[in-house]
Amino acid sequence: MSNAPILLTPGPLTTSIRTRQAMLVDWGSWDRDFNQLTASVCEQLLAIIDGAASHHCVPLQGSGTFAVEAAIGTLVPRDGKVLVLINGAYGQRLAKICKVLGRQYSTFETAEDQPTTAADVDRLLTADPSVTHVALIHCETSTGILNPLAEIAQVIKRHGKRLIIDAMSSFGALPIDAREIPFEALIAASGKCLEGVPGMGFVFAEKTALVAAEGNAHSLAMDLHDQHAYMAKTGQWRFTPPTHVVAALHEALQQYAEEGGLPARHQRYADNCKTLLDGMAKIGLQSFLPAEIQAPIIVTFHAPTDARYQFKDFYERVKAKGFILYPGKLTQVETFRVGCIGVVGPDGMQAAVNAVAEVLREMEVLDI
Amino acid sequence: MSNAPILLTPGPLTTSIRTRQAMLVDWGSWDRDFNQLTASVCEQLLAIIDGAASHHCVPLQGSGTFAVEAAIGTLVPRDGKVLVLINGAYGQRLAKICKVLGRQYSTFETAEDQPTTAADVDRLLTADPSVTHVALIHCETSTGILNPLAEIAQVIKRHGKRLIIDAMSSFGALPIDAREIPFEALIAASGKCLEGVPGMGFVFAEKTALVAAEGNAHSLAMDLHDQHAYMAKTGQWRFTPPTHVVAALHEALQQYAEEGGLPARHQRYADNCKTLLDGMAKIGLQSFLPAEIQAPIIVTFHAPTDARYQFKDFYERVKAKGFILYPGKLTQVETFRVGCIGVVGPDGMQAAVNAVAEVLREMEVLDI
Repeated sequence: MSNAPILLTPGPLTTSIRTRQAMLVDWGSWDRDFNQLTASVCEQLLAIIDGAASHHCVPLQGSGTFAVEAAIGTLVPRDGKVLVLINGAYGQRLAKICKVLGRQYSTFETAEDQPTTAADVDRLLTADPSVTHVALIHCETSTGILNPLAEIAQVIKRHGKRLIIDAMSSFGALPIDAREIPFEALIAASGKCLEGVPGMGFVFAEKTALVAAEGNAHSLAMDLHDQHAYMAKTGQWRFTPPTHVVAALHEALQQYAEEGGLPARHQRYADNCKTLLDGMAKIGLQSFLPAEIQAPIIVTFHAPTDARYQFKDFYERVKAKGFILYPGKLTQVETFRVGCIGVVGPDGMQAAVNAVAEVLREMEVLDI
Repeated sequence: MSNAPILLTPGPLTTSIRTRQAMLVDWGSWDRDFNQLTASVCEQLLAIIDGAASHHCVPLQGSGTFAVEAAIGTLVPRDGKVLVLINGAYGQRLAKICKVLGRQYSTFETAEDQPTTAADVDRLLTADPSVTHVALIHCETSTGILNPLAEIAQVIKRHGKRLIIDAMSSFGALPIDAREIPFEALIAASGKCLEGVPGMGFVFAEKTALVAAEGNAHSLAMDLHDQHAYMAKTGQWRFTPPTHVVAALHEALQQYAEEGGLPARHQRYADNCKTLLDGMAKIGLQSFLPAEIQAPIIVTFHAPTDARYQFKDFYERVKAKGFILYPGKLTQVETFRVGCIGVVGPDGMQAAVNAVAEVLREMEVLDI
């Protein structure tokens, strides 16, 4: 177990042994003890965004994408229209969800190294008053780019429209305050910056919007209105919860608080990111994004140009040294990605940089 | 941990420490090692029904109900019609899924202690040729009743219709052979008779039907055609898998094989069920179902008639003695349920019976 590689991936990521040990207990899903665990998780999650007054936390079985689909399907009425802001694969996926669900939508796409701006959104909403909801990826994991959430949210509010945020890879690490940023829904998952294990997502849904969403959903399992109503009444999940995943998240949230909450988590990831960027620059590996739009979550690097570099070989060699990297997701440029999140600190990141340097030497990759 | 109560519930249930310890490792979801784990799980699952030649195994994130909804949504064309056979809450839920998904359906409901018969299905299919699919709950967990799958499957085949089986609580314990029982889909989950932890379901989908199902689904996340096509091409799950749950299921399947596979699992559960029924009868607690339609999965007992009996008090007292029971799910009769499945043997069941007897004495419940 101690020999398992460190996951420098955007989730699943490396968790603490304490979080994993929380899965050594079996819980009855009907039992009061487990209901308390669920309630505590939801309460702690809401506290991270200061959202207890304005939003409900609705947990959902499955991966983060299940929660994104559930949010769109539940909160966007069947005659609604979604403007999807895209600069990477997760924005594309969100548009595809709208398409499959039969919700009207339009897209606005910028290059993968170009954040959407508030001015863009202002212009788009002025041009198309039929839009009811805007969907934004906060940190687009395809590249690691950060979109200017606060500014965009204000523009959307001024237009009287509703904002749905996919904050999958930023939630818990980058500050989002529900008292300052108006949004109808924000979606994240257990296995990202909270450092839990994968297996559940959750949606912070604005309270009155969730009440009004009855009957919208295209799905029984993904109906967040029903999921919330049943949980509010019984304390239980509607369908069998991933009990061990919930227990692990509860334990991970305890450690999150002990570390110092969001500011401390943010700082550690920022330190990780800086160590990574500085170290890789010394080797000659350039990051794809300029620093000002780079979130401290995952970094995309240009692959070496040397013909001796092959990602698969590179990946296996770095893995053998104890670190799991992530492939690139860009179609035009050859890249690879390195996550800054999970139970790892700057020393670990430096060790990863050293492993990358050694591997490139072993592979005789000179042209970087 | 050793003080955690035994879960005598229909899942989540008590797992082995070895299964839970398999969750102490973090896996990269993109990594070859994890892909091999997934492939091995699917292969072992298919072997249980001898289905490798005829069916694909498509795993899905979420609870069993997610997999049931995915099977209906993917395999029943939008102009199809489902005949849902109902004798309990899970049959009702399946009909509700058809309704929410906008699939045409009709229902045939028998009393909760009355199995659907092959003659019923023959008559119904003759009367309504527009039916394309029949959905059956193999073992209805509401009561523990077993429906005659083999006979019903033959009738459906004779009519040229397609069968979808919810085998959530029977798969792995009751024999189902894909070479003998014609079905288009069979659905089960990780946290039931395989004694894994909850967090994923799986659908055995008939190969040609799955190919033909492209574009049917109402959902991106629950599209089993896409889920399978992507996995066949890449070895990976389309969206983040519940890595620890998959690892636990892999370990649970190893133990399933070591125990002696389905015949041994079936025998242990049958022994559990007999010990339970005999022991409870001695206390005076009567089972709701006659023996010939009682599956060895979960048993429904009539609650004592004595006014001093209150389920909540009874439940808490039995829990304090180390056993978690399950509430009844019948609307007309007051009952409670006891599961026979999970990592427990006849000695454990006898200890549970003894705990129940002690508790009834403590509560001074005389009128049983």
